[in-house]
Amino acid sequence: MPQVYDQLREITTRLEKHYRGMQDFEFTIQGGKLYMLQTRNGQSTGVAQVIIALQMVEEGVITKEEAIFRVDPNRLIDLLVPRVDEKDVKPGDVLSKKGLPASPGGAAGQIVFTADEAVEKAGHRTDKNPVILVRSETTPEDIHGMEVAVAILTSRGGMTSHAAVVTRGMGKCCVAGAEDVDVNEKMREMRVKGQVFKEGDWITLDGTTGRVIKGKKKLLPPDPAMLAKLKQFMSWAEPFRKLGVRANADIPRDAIQARAFGAEGIGLCRTEHMFFEKDRIPHMQAMILTDNEKDRRAALKKLLPMQRSDFIALVEKYRRFGAKSASDLKKVMPGLLRRVEELHEFNPMLGHRGCRLGITYPEITEMQARAIFEAAVAVAKDGVKVFPEVMIPLTATLKEMANQAAIVNRIAQEVFTEKEQKVDYLVGTMIELPRAALVADEIAKESQFFSFGTNDLTQTTFGFSRDDVNKILPTYLAEGILKQDPFAVLDREGVGQLVKMATERGRKTRPDLKVGICGEHGGDPSSVEFCHQTGLNYVSCSPFRVLTARLAAAQAAATDKLRVEGGRTK
Amino acid sequence: MPQVYDQLREITTRLEKHYRGMQDFEFTIQGGKLYMLQTRNGQSTGVAQVIIALQMVEEGVITKEEAIFRVDPNRLIDLLVPRVDEKDVKPGDVLSKKGLPASPGGAAGQIVFTADEAVEKAGHRTDKNPVILVRSETTPEDIHGMEVAVAILTSRGGMTSHAAVVTRGMGKCCVAGAEDVDVNEKMREMRVKGQVFKEGDWITLDGTTGRVIKGKKKLLPPDPAMLAKLKQFMSWAEPFRKLGVRANADIPRDAIQARAFGAEGIGLCRTEHMFFEKDRIPHMQAMILTDNEKDRRAALKKLLPMQRSDFIALVEKYRRFGAKSASDLKKVMPGLLRRVEELHEFNPMLGHRGCRLGITYPEITEMQARAIFEAAVAVAKDGVKVFPEVMIPLTATLKEMANQAAIVNRIAQEVFTEKEQKVDYLVGTMIELPRAALVADEIAKESQFFSFGTNDLTQTTFGFSRDDVNKILPTYLAEGILKQDPFAVLDREGVGQLVKMATERGRKTRPDLKVGICGEHGGDPSSVEFCHQTGLNYVSCSPFRVLTARLAAAQAAATDKLRVEGGRTK
Repeated sequence: MPQVYDQLREITTRLEKHYRGMQDFEFTIQGGKLYMLQTRNGQSTGVAQVIIALQMVEEGVITKEEAIFRVDPNRLIDLLVPRVDEKDVKPGDVLSKKGLPASPGGAAGQIVFTADEAVEKAGHRTDKNPVILVRSETTPEDIHGMEVAVAILTSRGGMTSHAAVVTRGMGKCCVAGAEDVDVNEKMREMRVKGQVFKEGDWITLDGTTGRVIKGKKKLLPPDPAMLAKLKQFMSWAEPFRKLGVRANADIPRDAIQARAFGAEGIGLCRTEHMFFEKDRIPHMQAMILTDNEKDRRAALKKLLPMQRSDFIALVEKYRRFGAKSASDLKKVMPGLLRRVEELHEFNPMLGHRGCRLGITYPEITEMQARAIFEAAVAVAKDGVKVFPEVMIPLTATLKEMANQAAIVNRIAQEVFTEKEQKVDYLVGTMIELPRAALVADEIAKESQFFSFGTNDLTQTTFGFSRDDVNKILPTYLAEGILKQDPFAVLDREGVGQLVKMATERGRKTRPDLKVGICGEHGGDPSSVEFCHQTGLNYVSCSPFRVLTARLAAAQAAATDKLRVEGGRTK
Repeated sequence: MPQVYDQLREITTRLEKHYRGMQDFEFTIQGGKLYMLQTRNGQSTGVAQVIIALQMVEEGVITKEEAIFRVDPNRLIDLLVPRVDEKDVKPGDVLSKKGLPASPGGAAGQIVFTADEAVEKAGHRTDKNPVILVRSETTPEDIHGMEVAVAILTSRGGMTSHAAVVTRGMGKCCVAGAEDVDVNEKMREMRVKGQVFKEGDWITLDGTTGRVIKGKKKLLPPDPAMLAKLKQFMSWAEPFRKLGVRANADIPRDAIQARAFGAEGIGLCRTEHMFFEKDRIPHMQAMILTDNEKDRRAALKKLLPMQRSDFIALVEKYRRFGAKSASDLKKVMPGLLRRVEELHEFNPMLGHRGCRLGITYPEITEMQARAIFEAAVAVAKDGVKVFPEVMIPLTATLKEMANQAAIVNRIAQEVFTEKEQKVDYLVGTMIELPRAALVADEIAKESQFFSFGTNDLTQTTFGFSRDDVNKILPTYLAEGILKQDPFAVLDREGVGQLVKMATERGRKTRPDLKVGICGEHGGDPSSVEFCHQTGLNYVSCSPFRVLTARLAAAQAAATDKLRVEGGRTK
């Protein structure tokens, strides 16, 4: 296809003219069309893709409809992360260029060599005490350190290594497999280019290009000019989209970010995360450790006002930030009664949590439902339109669902009577166990919506523990046993079959059943496409994935349109 | 229905005349028919049921066909366990009659109060140093002690308590919930009837009646007269049976017992149990702990002859004991490449085991396949007809199955060439993950048989860990959320749906696909009935459950016959 190469040359010239920062490109051609541009230096793939798409439309080479396919939804994150200020980087500062750009963005921090040290040093103020966790490779045992570090550097492992996969999931900067960096965890030192770095030394990582840089470099916020371009690009894509996009948000900060990226509501609020704030822990422990109902109720009583104010804060922040009209706020507060504490169990994944806890200790469900409805009523009195969807987690049978829905509905009525104010709400369930999908027609009798918890559903369907899968996955991907990490990209053949089955069976019982997904797959383009094709109502994903989901949903819908228009499929 | 009461009176009289040992009966009437007789003293329910069935046929009250429904398959075990010799029990010896007859049989042993003490005291010679584990209640943490104890006594908990369920699964005597026994684990003492018992004191338990007896009482083997009656009874039931019944056996002792109870082959041989014999542990550890293939192969080379001789011993013992003709031996040696070692994992249930281990370390599969085929060829040369079915565990995808089947087939050909002897064999898979059931049509392309591992399939379908389920189950049963323990009785609605789906899809690809189950459900009457109805070829269960499965399978088939004959359903 010589015209492809002509096009390529033309675009390269155009690119260099319009965007000097980018050099060293890599092109990917699919179906005779130029889709992707990788750049290893200075600017990111996502930035390049958006610029090229806009440029090509402006020059009349492609239509707007075609343009929306020229950007990889996964790369939109590149436009939203902090960047290393190149003016602050002197030639001798770059210690390594051999690392993989595993998760984009720039970050500067003090080196730590273990997860425990990361926690100790960063504390709860990761912004004030930024640390970079440096390890030869990370394992699931490091997760607490990865959570508090601002960035991760590893000397081993590829783009699907533990560090790479986990940081991408967190939207956190990572340089992986920097082979010329010699990490000695025992000696607590890192050697590179003949220089020795100790715990506490400052380094800067560029996860967009894979560079390791000496010292504390200046970081720049996302380029406002690029954000304007992004906005223009998204305005072309958005009209196609049919699938709703919500965000998973447990704290106001997440709600604000979600709103900024255009989320249409909160699709998952894990109330158990709220329980782990410092001031709640003693009450939480008191509740869990007691073996009598009276003490448990006393502890729950103390947690109630805290949880209620959490919900109010979540709604208020969500509303204040970026809400244009009251109608935008319709779906802001689904409460979720999820696992509260996993205690010590042999297989915590398969243990005493979710609705099982709410059935053995109904007072926990009662308290959480009360916090949700008291908060909803309080904000409704302030004139906010609020529409809570109370989600019962981990159901496997109709009777579990009926048991918990009865409690929620009873508490709702109690609160409405007490406060002389009503709000509309739904009670539904998280479908995260194979059995729930198999008996979805039954469960839908008592459930007004389904939200697929595809993380847990993938674990149980495959019998893969997410924590342990990294022992198996590298071999499986290398041998071609699996094409993709099923925790990143929804397994359509197996897990997807259950999603489809449950959706169909659920809607047979209840034609207006609202169906969404709230696993991490909600932010993965291929999975979003599957959700669109399966007729789901919405996806819910991490806040920083909202743009990705929006574009992926638009691409899926536009593909449908192109198909209908006659064979011009992507 | 006055005739029922006439019948009842008549039978009572008859019973007392014919079987003086029984007093204190309890009758259960279902559909106007007298089905069960519980006896709380001296003789067991199963014994009573068989005697009455035979008696009623002899007196022409019911037909043989009707008689086979008069015995609860679960109670056949009562006829096969050791009994307390009543002549040895003086009136003052009985310490408690308040315990529940949780798992039948008699046992005498020295008291221990913790699982660790049980292991320490009993060692590996449980017959030489019999211990009885006494606890207020047992938990999954006690399992190692329960395995070596000859019997269990608890002061708390009912017929579905942990102790009761686990011991019934093991076929081990248990008296549960003996409220008048005061167990003080910290003080290491048990108080009952004002007497104090310390560690090392002898007691005798009667799990058939729920009695706790002082001292070491004489035990009697199963009554030969009753065994003759049982044989007669089974001869009426057996002609109906269509479902094959095999046994799960890892060691020759189990194979012998299975054969004695009429198993038609070994349906599951967990080779990993063989690995944990004392002489193998160092090699096993060497294999697991090394991180290079060469050392792993060296360790495997040492394990090969051990495993080969294990297989030979299993076949030889099975053959020598009770085999009437060579044709009886057709299916004696299915080898199973199952989890080898679970290392340390967050969720061991969902971890790096089964075929995943065989894919990451193909040399393990190679060694095990070699042991199986070398053993098969060796016994075949002795004129034994042997038919190994090599089962690949924990498959979730076609490619896993293809990968492992290729190794097994290659090794088989190598061994046949080296030894100049062939044997017929099959390569199939354990279906124990929801995904495997969902893509069974695919997996059947490379799998010549399916065996449902319904223990693991129940865990993953429900998201219940078997180890943790006892925290939830008591509440769930009490609240009616679940009608039965899904680990004891197959959940037809959920797990059963997957079994049915996989059977149908598998046979669509491969019409002659042989299908069985090898979970503990294989010995549960309701689950056996489901397997019959679903068109499975066989069930495989614990050796002591073989009779139960045989009778349950006969009842299921006879029920079909009655249905066809016109509404005379059970």
